[in-house]
Order: sequence, then C-alpha cells, then structure tokens
Amino acid sequence: MSAVRTIRAPRGSTLTCRGWQQEAAMRMLMNNLDPEVAENPDQLIVYGGTGKAARNWEAFERIVETLKVLRNDETLLVQSGKPVAVFETHERAPRVLIANSLLVPKWATWEHFWELEGKGLIMFGQMTAGSWIYIGSQGIIQGTYETLAAVARQHFGGSLEGRVVLTGGLGGMGGAQPLAITMNGGVGLIIEVDERRIRRRVDMGYCDRWTADLDEALRWVEEARQKREPLSVALLGNCAEVEPELVRRGWIPDVVTDQTSAHDPLGGYVPAGLTVAEAERLRSSDPEEYVRRSMASMAAHCEAMVAFQKAGAVVFDYGNNLRGQAKAAGFDEAFSYPGFVPAYIRPLFEEGKGPFRWVALSGDPEDIYKTDRVILEEFGRENEGLARWLRLAGEKIPFQGLPARICWLGYGERDRAGLLFNHMVKKGELKAPIVIGRDHLDAGSVASPYRETEGMRDGSDAIADWPILNALINTAAGASWVSVHHGGGVGIGYSIHAGQVVVADGSDEAEWRLAHVLRTDPGMGVVRHADAGYERAQQVARERGIKMPSLGIGMDAGNGRQGG
Amino acid sequence: MSAVRTIRAPRGSTLTCRGWQQEAAMRMLMNNLDPEVAENPDQLIVYGGTGKAARNWEAFERIVETLKVLRNDETLLVQSGKPVAVFETHERAPRVLIANSLLVPKWATWEHFWELEGKGLIMFGQMTAGSWIYIGSQGIIQGTYETLAAVARQHFGGSLEGRVVLTGGLGGMGGAQPLAITMNGGVGLIIEVDERRIRRRVDMGYCDRWTADLDEALRWVEEARQKREPLSVALLGNCAEVEPELVRRGWIPDVVTDQTSAHDPLGGYVPAGLTVAEAERLRSSDPEEYVRRSMASMAAHCEAMVAFQKAGAVVFDYGNNLRGQAKAAGFDEAFSYPGFVPAYIRPLFEEGKGPFRWVALSGDPEDIYKTDRVILEEFGRENEGLARWLRLAGEKIPFQGLPARICWLGYGERDRAGLLFNHMVKKGELKAPIVIGRDHLDAGSVASPYRETEGMRDGSDAIADWPILNALINTAAGASWVSVHHGGGVGIGYSIHAGQVVVADGSDEAEWRLAHVLRTDPGMGVVRHADAGYERAQQVARERGIKMPSLGIGMDAGNGRQGG
Ligand SMILES: NC(=O)c1ccc[n+]([C@@H]2O[C@H](COP(=O)([O-])OP(=O)(O)OC[C@H]3O[C@@H](n4cnc5c(N)ncnc54)[C@H](O)[C@@H]3O)[C@@H](O)[C@H]2O)c1
Ligand SMILES: NC(=O)c1ccc[n+]([C@@H]2O[C@H](COP(=O)([O-])OP(=O)(O)OC[C@H]3O[C@@H](n4cnc5c(N)ncnc54)[C@H](O)[C@@H]3O)[C@@H](O)[C@H]2O)c1
Repeated sequence: MSAVRTIRAPRGSTLTCRGWQQEAAMRMLMNNLDPEVAENPDQLIVYGGTGKAARNWEAFERIVETLKVLRNDETLLVQSGKPVAVFETHERAPRVLIANSLLVPKWATWEHFWELEGKGLIMFGQMTAGSWIYIGSQGIIQGTYETLAAVARQHFGGSLEGRVVLTGGLGGMGGAQPLAITMNGGVGLIIEVDERRIRRRVDMGYCDRWTADLDEALRWVEEARQKREPLSVALLGNCAEVEPELVRRGWIPDVVTDQTSAHDPLGGYVPAGLTVAEAERLRSSDPEEYVRRSMASMAAHCEAMVAFQKAGAVVFDYGNNLRGQAKAAGFDEAFSYPGFVPAYIRPLFEEGKGPFRWVALSGDPEDIYKTDRVILEEFGRENEGLARWLRLAGEKIPFQGLPARICWLGYGERDRAGLLFNHMVKKGELKAPIVIGRDHLDAGSVASPYRETEGMRDGSDAIADWPILNALINTAAGASWVSVHHGGGVGIGYSIHAGQVVVADGSDEAEWRLAHVLRTDPGMGVVRHADAGYERAQQVARERGIKMPSLGIGMDAGNGRQGG
Repeated sequence: MSAVRTIRAPRGSTLTCRGWQQEAAMRMLMNNLDPEVAENPDQLIVYGGTGKAARNWEAFERIVETLKVLRNDETLLVQSGKPVAVFETHERAPRVLIANSLLVPKWATWEHFWELEGKGLIMFGQMTAGSWIYIGSQGIIQGTYETLAAVARQHFGGSLEGRVVLTGGLGGMGGAQPLAITMNGGVGLIIEVDERRIRRRVDMGYCDRWTADLDEALRWVEEARQKREPLSVALLGNCAEVEPELVRRGWIPDVVTDQTSAHDPLGGYVPAGLTVAEAERLRSSDPEEYVRRSMASMAAHCEAMVAFQKAGAVVFDYGNNLRGQAKAAGFDEAFSYPGFVPAYIRPLFEEGKGPFRWVALSGDPEDIYKTDRVILEEFGRENEGLARWLRLAGEKIPFQGLPARICWLGYGERDRAGLLFNHMVKKGELKAPIVIGRDHLDAGSVASPYRETEGMRDGSDAIADWPILNALINTAAGASWVSVHHGGGVGIGYSIHAGQVVVADGSDEAEWRLAHVLRTDPGMGVVRHADAGYERAQQVARERGIKMPSLGIGMDAGNGRQGG
C-alpha cells in the first residue's frame, strides 16, 4: 500500500495521543523501525533474522492511527503485527495486547510458518521486535557482560581483574565479547579467523588491539594480567589450531568459552588450516568435504576446551552448540562443561533478575544519564557489577534511536527503580516519561528447552504454562502493553515467551501500575524457579514475601484452615 | 497426601470466601469433581479421556484453602492444576488465572506429556475440566442439537419436522443424537451395532424405541414422517451393511451423518458381518485382519453416504474422521461432503455464537427455571431454535451437580443475558449468584485445524495468536477467571484454546464485568472470522459496532487522520 519511508519516533513532551501509554507504544513501535535501531527498516525488520515490528506498512499505519485515537479505557489487539480490534476495557488495563507468530504445535514448523507468511497471515516477532521494546545492540553487550559478571562472582570474588578470558568469534553477537570482558576488569584473548571482523571491532572501540602473532598476543595478555589492567586482544587465527597449541604449551587461561558460529558447520564455522578465502572456495566446490573438516575441527576445538577445564580453567558453552557438534564428530567428553544458562544465568533468574531496560521518550540523553545516577545511588553500593556496568555503559555505549539503558534487576528492585523514575518524571526532573520494559529472555517469561529453560532441575524445561501465566498476570497487574510470542531466539517450534512494557509518566495511576506489574513480572521468575525446586528462589520468595500456596510460602496469615 | 473423598459443592447464599468470585471458583472446581458430574472423580478426572480439574488431591486442597482467603484485589495463578502463586492485582482483575497442559511446540507430543505427567509436573486440562466450568452431558446434547438446528435452518426453513435423519452410533457422545433429533422436531433412524448401547439410550429416555428389523424400523419412521411427529428409532445393525442396503432400495433420508467411532479402526469401528462379540474375538486373535475389514467397511459406509448425497440428501461429517479412513481405504470420493464446523457451525461463529452456559450457585433448580424463562422472553421470539431448546431442555435434561443450562448466544446477546441475570440476583429473584461461562469450543477462543478452525477461508487454520488474544482481552475486560489450555478435544499437539468465566452476583462491579467481558469474548469470535474474510462476520462487526482498525470498521469517528 504505502511506499517505504524513514521512521523516527517523535521526541519531547508533547502528547499526540490521548495518553502517555498510547504515545509510548507509538513512539516505541517507531523507534524499533528507526534506521539507527533496525537492521532492515525498509522491510520492517528490527533484528534477529526476520524479527519484525509490524506485519506490513499498511498495518504499521493503521496501528499508529489507532494509537492516536485510542481512549484511556480502550485496548488495541495486535495479531502478528496487524491491528485487528479495539475493545472497551478500563483504565488499569493494558492499552495494547499483542500475540505474534503463535501456531498450533503440530503445525509449528518454519515451513508452515513461511507458507502463512507468504499469504500475509502471520509475522515473526522475535522477542522485542514485535513487542516494540528493542533498544539496539546494548542488549547483546549487556547479556555478555552480565554472564561474565556472574562468572566473576561465582569464581573470582566479583571481578575479572587480573583474570584471562580466552574465547573465539568476533561476529555479530560474539563481537561484544572483548568489551564485555574489559568492562568486567578482565584481560581477553579472542581468536577470530576473519581479519575484517577483527578490524571492525577494533575500529568501533570494542576491542583494544590485535595481532596475527600468537607470541605477541600472549605477551600483551601476560603484561596486562600482571598489572591487573583491563585489555582485549584479538588474535587472527583459528580456534581449532590455536587452542590445542595453547594446551600443548601448558598456557592455561582462567576462563574459556566460545562464540564462533559452531551451530552451522557449513555456513558458519571455519575449519583448521584454511584462510577465510580458502574456506569460501571449499564451501562451494566441495561442501561435504567442508563439513567433514569443520566437524573434525570442532572436535579438536572442544577437546582443547575440555583440556583447559581439566587444567583448572572455568569453561562454559555460550549457546552455539559446539558441544553438540563435537560430540557428533566423535568426541565423547564434549558435554564435560555446562551451558551458560544453567551455569551462570539461572542463579540470577532465581532472584527474578533479568534484562530490565528503560527508554527516555524525551529523546534527551541527559534523561538517561540522570536515571543512571539514580540507579547507581539506589543499587550501586550493594551491587558492584551493576555499578561498573552503569559507569562504563555511560562512557562506552552509543545510543541508537531513543536514548535507553539496560541493566539486570531482580524482584524487589525493579519496582523500586520504576517508582523512582516515576517520581523523577512527576517532579519535572526528566523532560518526558520513561518507558520501562525488558527482553522476553527473562526469569519467568520464557519456555525454551535449548536455551533459557535448558536442564531445569525438575525436568520441566518444555512446560509452556509459565510464559502464558506471565502474560496473563501482567495484563491483570498494570502493564501498558503485553505480548506473547513463539519462536524467538531459537526459532519456530522451540520457544514460547512473553513481554511486558509499562510507562512511568509521573501520574498516580502510573505509580499503581509500576508498583504492581514490576512485582508480578519478576515475581513469576522467582515462582517458576521455586516451583522447579531451586532453593535460592524459594528463599527469595520467603524473604521478600511472595505467596506460593503450593509450597506453603507466605500463606501463613490465612491458609484457609481457619477459613469458613 | 490426602485420601480419596467425595466432593460436592456447597449450595446456597452463604459466602465462605471473601467474595463471590472466589466462592464461585471454589464451588465450580468442586462441582467439576462431583460424582454426578465427573467421569472418574477419585482420580480428579472430569471428562474427555483424562481431563482433570486439579493436579492431585493436595493441589485441590491448596486451591480451596487459597480461594477461601484470597482478597478481592488478589489473583491466584494455577499452573496445570496446581496453585503456584498469589499476587496483588486490583478489583477488576480476574481472581484466578489458569494455564494447563501447554508445551513448547517441538515437545508437544503425548509421549513427552506423559513423561512430564508421570513426574507430576503437568496435567491434561481438556477444555472445561481444568477451567472449572464443565456442566455434564448437557453440553454434548446441546452441541448436537445446535448442529441439527443449523441444518434445519439452512435446508428446511428452521425445523426438522417431517424430516428423516439417518445416522450411526449410540456411544458416549453419539448417544445424544436421537434426543437432539427429536428436540429439533425430526424423525431419527440411528444404526448401532451394540444392543447394550441401544438399551441404555432407550432406558434413559434419550431414544424412543428400537428394533433389529429394518422393515419395521422403516415403517415406524415413515409413519412419523407423514404425521410430522418427532420420533427416534434405533436399529440394531451395522452401518456398513444397512446403509448400502438402503441405497439399493432407493430409500433416501433428508439428512445423513455419523458418529460411529471411525477415528479408531481397531478399538472403535465394528466391521460388517460381525456381531459385537465376534468383533471382540477377532480384535484380539487377528488385529491386522480386523483393521483390514474395518477399513473396507468404512469405505462402503462412506460410499453409501456419498450415494445419499448424490440422491439429494444433506450429508455431513461429524468429526469422527470417517472420510479420512474411507479415503485411506481407497474410496476416492470420500471428501465429497463437508465437515460439520465449516458446514453448519461456522456461520454461528461468524456472529460470535457459541455454547454460552450458566450455573446456579444456590443449587436450586428453580433458579435455572427462572433464568430459562427470562432467556425465552428475551430471545425466544427472534430465535425459534433457541426457544425449542430451552423448553425441551427444561423437560428432558436431568441436572448433574449444580443446576445449569447451556444455549448458544452471540455477540450482543451474551452481555444482555448476563446483565439480566445480574439484575435478577440484585432484586433477590434468584437465591444466589449465577456463574456464567462457556466451552473453549467457541467462536473466537480456539485454534484447532482438525476441528474448529478446519478449512478457514484464508488458510489461517493453525494460527494460535487468536486464543491467546482472547485470554488476554478477557483478562483485561472483567472475567472472574481465565484459562489457556493446549490439546483439548483433539489431543496434545492439535489445539490451543482459552476459557473465561464471570460471576453475576448482583453487584455494580459485576455489572461492569458482565457488560465488558461478555462483549470482548464473543467479539473475538466475530473479529477472528471477519479477519479471515467471512462477510457475515464483517457485517456483524459493522452493524453491532465492533472496532476493527485493520478492516477500517468502526474507526470512522476518529481514524487518526484528524488526530494530533
Ligand atoms: N545467548 C546465547 O546463547 C548466545 C549469545 C550470543 C551468541 N550465541 C551463539 O554464538 C555464535 C556466534 O554468534 P554471532 O552472531 O557472533 O555469529 P557470526 O556468524 O556473526 O560470527 C561468528 C564468528 O566466528 C568466526 N569463526 C568461525 N569459525 C572460526 C574458527 N574456527 N576460529 C575462529 N573464528 C571462527 C567467524 O569468522 C565469525 O566472525 C552463534 O552460534 C550464536 O548462536 C549464543
Ligand atoms: N464435535 C465433534 O466433532 C464430535 C462430537 C461427537 C462425536 N464425535 C466423534 O464421533 C465418534 C463417536 O464418539 P462417541 O463418544 O460416541 O464414541 P463411542 O466409542 O462411545 O461410541 C461409538 C459407537 O459406535 C458403534 N459402532 C461402531 N462401529 C459401528 C458400525 N459399523 N455400525 C454401527 N455402529 C457402530 C459402537 O458400538 C459405539 O456404540 C468419535 O469418533 C468422536 O470423535 C465428534
């Protein structure tokens, strides 16, 4: 219907809708499609393969038109990126309810999805694309940062100072590794086979320096380690060659992981002995031989990682399936080290911690810096990793689109943060309202057996009741918009997840919303893990007053035995 | 934990919880497990294979205890029949939110489900079992009645008077057929191979008389047809023998369908030429031969149905997969006649019509009779089929557990009915509040490509965004409890569906809830069908004022072009 156009969210404190919740939804939808934010805005693609913000341009227009006239007691329904209905609800209800990409399980395949997509009937929403709360690559850096912070807490007393992290891959997501390592105070050695990728990361300031000479790299690393100075060094090389060589030399790092694209043995991983150019030629001339070599290299790569582990290093998988490939290639001990969620993220999930994020509708970076300071004051003393992240994010991370920030907060923290922001808006300390949301990758909002719910203690990995309950309770507890998606992160068939966003516009009504939904939402994370038998989650529920009838937690005041 | 016990919901107007919504949820949960209602209450099984009301007895107890103390600004979360959390929400929020049997699609198989069930982690909720609004076999009779009423409307000017319906099967669900035929004024000839099944239906008063003599059966049928008197005749025989014989004789009924258990060629369908006893022996001695004969018989059976159709009869499939089996057995024309949803039910769905039901918490049948009269007055004049159903249901249908009624109402009718009931409670005309709910098999609440969403005009059969949006909007619009389930009706992997229940307790708050949720809920049915291209649904949306931005319906007053 409409031609391609450039979208940029309005800034400032002038309301063009009938309320700030509608205004926020409209601006965040537009912000997702801002060329600074979206990977391919012409096709409405925000990130993550084909994760879209609206079904098509006509749907986008209709959504915007509808949000402009939507009353404060009405709710807009969006079905896979298309605005299908408006119903009268009430003031405390969400203004928008979204369901994206959901399929009856038997038909939940990419093939059927593509067929429906071809007919214009469905849209891939990824996680934050179709739920209008993507904030650019800040999220990727922060996830890696937070994982390494958890490693630091668990093994090194809270910091990576004087510790060496060895890893591979400086691609789309892996490129965040050097910065995440140095932000945690550590020294990183990152092996990457593609010189262009290395140069890009060095040019962007994500990586400090690079070399093709292993001895030089090791010298730099050793120096920084001894001085306990943060440093990231990229080494042009192949993990499957360099890592076994390091093992042979007895050079053992403190932490080892990997973000080469091991999930794809043909299009992704580069076998030992080949330059990138040679790899490209072999890929097309003899793909079978390519895959054979690639699998053998992954086995050698993984074997070196297991050797590091045996020599005392902390080793974990970063969700690229290197272990699976190595095992398939005949290396039986591949699963000796754990995946990152069970190893490092789950303990955070147990406290309802996850990627809390917020956006300044004013468009003014100053608003975010002010919130940074408030968060730092409120939580910085008790949380050193958080404090370091906020300081460094303020220095190092460029804003994309509307200024935004991300940091991991848990149950009892998110509502405090939300109320602080609302207070700042009310007092006029910020120039416009703040939008508060999160990734669908969160403590209690996702069922994804190959990622977020891998290896749950009770075996409940595949149970999808939880994300649905999360969406329902957030709808009942004051979210401004709520979304349920299928297939984000790991693809169609592999995950069900929910999102929520709430607006701090300084009103009393917003205060009510924030105080409630920023408890129910992380609360679901605590409950989901407590129910699965995680003791820390049960303790958090007990200490922070979450009611769990099935565990007899928090129900003492009236457990019904005295009831009528 | 606890021993098996007999459950019966409290009756009367004494509140034992802190509000009528909690009280209603508690009584309806208990009512689902009443031995008069449940198939196997000892195992908490309500109906439909293993459809349960609570995970186990401990969970049942905890739910009841929690409901007794739950405040009017709190919400209980139930995960597969277990009460996992209570959160503070607000007065207009649902008191209970339920998610049952949901699995990440890739793991959505009976095998994985049973594995999780074995570990005590999940429960099969069917449709109304796990959502606490099952009302006994009334629902089955009424569904069959409504299908035949739709046949009557479409083909015979609104009544089956003087019309002959030929069908097969007097089993669990099929046994409702004779009564549904005579309630529509028609003459039924029902072929059933098992004499015990026939006797049971005659003894219960569902079927008028029976014979093993085809000529006698035809004589009775002809007489009744000529006198235009309702009559149901069961014929002891096998469809695969009798129906081809009727074709040979040129005896053509007006309507033909079938409810033999054709979906199961070994355990269900009985091949031609065998008595039930002989069939049982062959089943165990030579199952392969059994299936071979069974498939051949189904082909002959289906072929006769197609012959009736060619000779002018109205023929439809009743969801037992006879067409599929006949086709597999080599009968190419099997799919000559349509399934019942696309043929008869979908036009009702287009108007948001579906199985609206209500229950008298007083326990007094008089309360239901009074509501019957009010519904009759309000809708009877414009809806002859509804009027006949209500009169006959009052006479012929025994109550099971709490007195209840079911009838199909559409968008614009359900809220009227709900408000009338609330008014009656307020005025003291009824002894206690009325609970209003529905089956998950409804216009806008289910995605099930082999049943309710078979053959959608735009091919969107498998898109499950709709039931999720239904649950979310009902949560935002005043439902007392809301549920989302997987696998009801057609089994794990094959459906996603949602339920909602709302309580008319005579309060102003209830009035608000009823006025809103009884619009959003059937409204989703209209919207889902309008979006899929059904003209009648688009017309209903236009006429009755549903707003559909994507179709430009109802948005004229402010489509945003004039907006800020
Ligand atoms: N949350 C998570 O679980 C998570 C997060 C980030 C990344 N990942 C996974 O990590 C992998 C990387 O993601 P990406 O977006 O950066 O992929 P990408 O394809 O953009 O980058 C992969 C990089 O690895 C390099 N590489 C390939 N083979 C190599 C070898 N043998 N030695 C050295 N370098 C080699 C490539 O040149 C490329 O730069 C993927 O498998 C992804 O799924 C998972
Ligand atoms: N909404 C729907 O789509 C819907 C509704 C009701 C029933 N059904 C389907 O209808 C079928 C029947 O359901 P049910 O619960 O009554 O099953 P059931 O197994 O209880 O009863 C089937 C009956 O058919 C009889 N029968 C079997 N083969 C026969 C033959 N060749 N000739 C005559 N009688 C024969 C059996 O003796 C039995 O009494 C099932 O396949 C069910 O799925 C679908």
